[in-house]
Amino acid sequence: MNSSSAANVTVALVHHPVVDKNGETIAAAITALDLHDIARASKTFGVKAFYVVTPLEDQQTLVRRIIGHWITGVGATYNPDRRAALDLIRLKRSLQDVVMEMEATQGSRPSVVVTSARTENSDLSYVALGDLAGGSRPVLLVFGTAWGLAPEVMATADFRLAPIKGAGTYNHLAVRSAVSIILDRMLGNRI
Amino acid sequence: MNSSSAANVTVALVHHPVVDKNGETIAAAITALDLHDIARASKTFGVKAFYVVTPLEDQQTLVRRIIGHWITGVGATYNPDRRAALDLIRLKRSLQDVVMEMEATQGSRPSVVVTSARTENSDLSYVALGDLAGGSRPVLLVFGTAWGLAPEVMATADFRLAPIKGAGTYNHLAVRSAVSIILDRMLGNRI
Repeated sequence: MNSSSAANVTVALVHHPVVDKNGETIAAAITALDLHDIARASKTFGVKAFYVVTPLEDQQTLVRRIIGHWITGVGATYNPDRRAALDLIRLKRSLQDVVMEMEATQGSRPSVVVTSARTENSDLSYVALGDLAGGSRPVLLVFGTAWGLAPEVMATADFRLAPIKGAGTYNHLAVRSAVSIILDRMLGNRI
Repeated sequence: MNSSSAANVTVALVHHPVVDKNGETIAAAITALDLHDIARASKTFGVKAFYVVTPLEDQQTLVRRIIGHWITGVGATYNPDRRAALDLIRLKRSLQDVVMEMEATQGSRPSVVVTSARTENSDLSYVALGDLAGGSRPVLLVFGTAWGLAPEVMATADFRLAPIKGAGTYNHLAVRSAVSIILDRMLGNRI
């Protein structure tokens, strides 16, 4: 951990394929505050880019409108700090498109690390995540909206990160909170 | 750190007195997602209670309406996990009222720890915060909305926690993110 100077970390927030309360695969709606909070945390911890993934045209339009307000609209002069954060956002139709763009722009395929609140089959500890961040290969941290990433996304990733453990068995964190905590564990400087 | 089994930690989210962009003291509006995200993080990390502080009657009504929907309304059966989290919320007019209630119900005055994104005058490291959490006295962690807690609240607290450091000089985290990270640093179990 705390290898922030060398780290090459990218975040993706996936809206499809994710599961609903009943385990059915859905495309979740965009939440504006997800974009703001995760962009601000990404900027704070030195993340290279924040990919927002949705195949839905109307949801892509919504993302562009939110970004536009803060990057080139009245928000840009009202709050330049917010602009600096939202500037990290990239919009993609699928996680495959994210991996392909990273491979094309960075010269090597990233290690794809998926996250979940469930313990089953996790195979990456936070110590090992820190080691990954300190390595030469880019790291793509993938988060799911709604009730989490669909099983096929979990299964086909390179690594499945251990869930965040609190004081007991309750671990129903907002995805905004989970991203913040995992970036801090990976990249934060503790004094 | 990681002394969650023994920790006696309470969170307060203050909407007055806080400062705006220009440093003027204001009463900030309630943000529904602050209540949800901070309640969920508090529940996850075993926090005893989550105090929402506002002196404004209409804002208190709004808080009661949000809680009511999820505790006794249709939300309670739709999402029992959310109910368990929002059940931690207590509404108070002032930080003084929070301290008085904690003293009355817990038998001793809490150590009041205020938080800020600014470094000036911080006098509590995260290691020292972990030691406080492992002690016998209750700990009250205080967060400000808008542009942060007013100077008099910072000055009169027992301790001023070091700000969260990321990769560079940018540290404009949402208060929702800051609460999540600080609770994790204090109470999280890392595997």
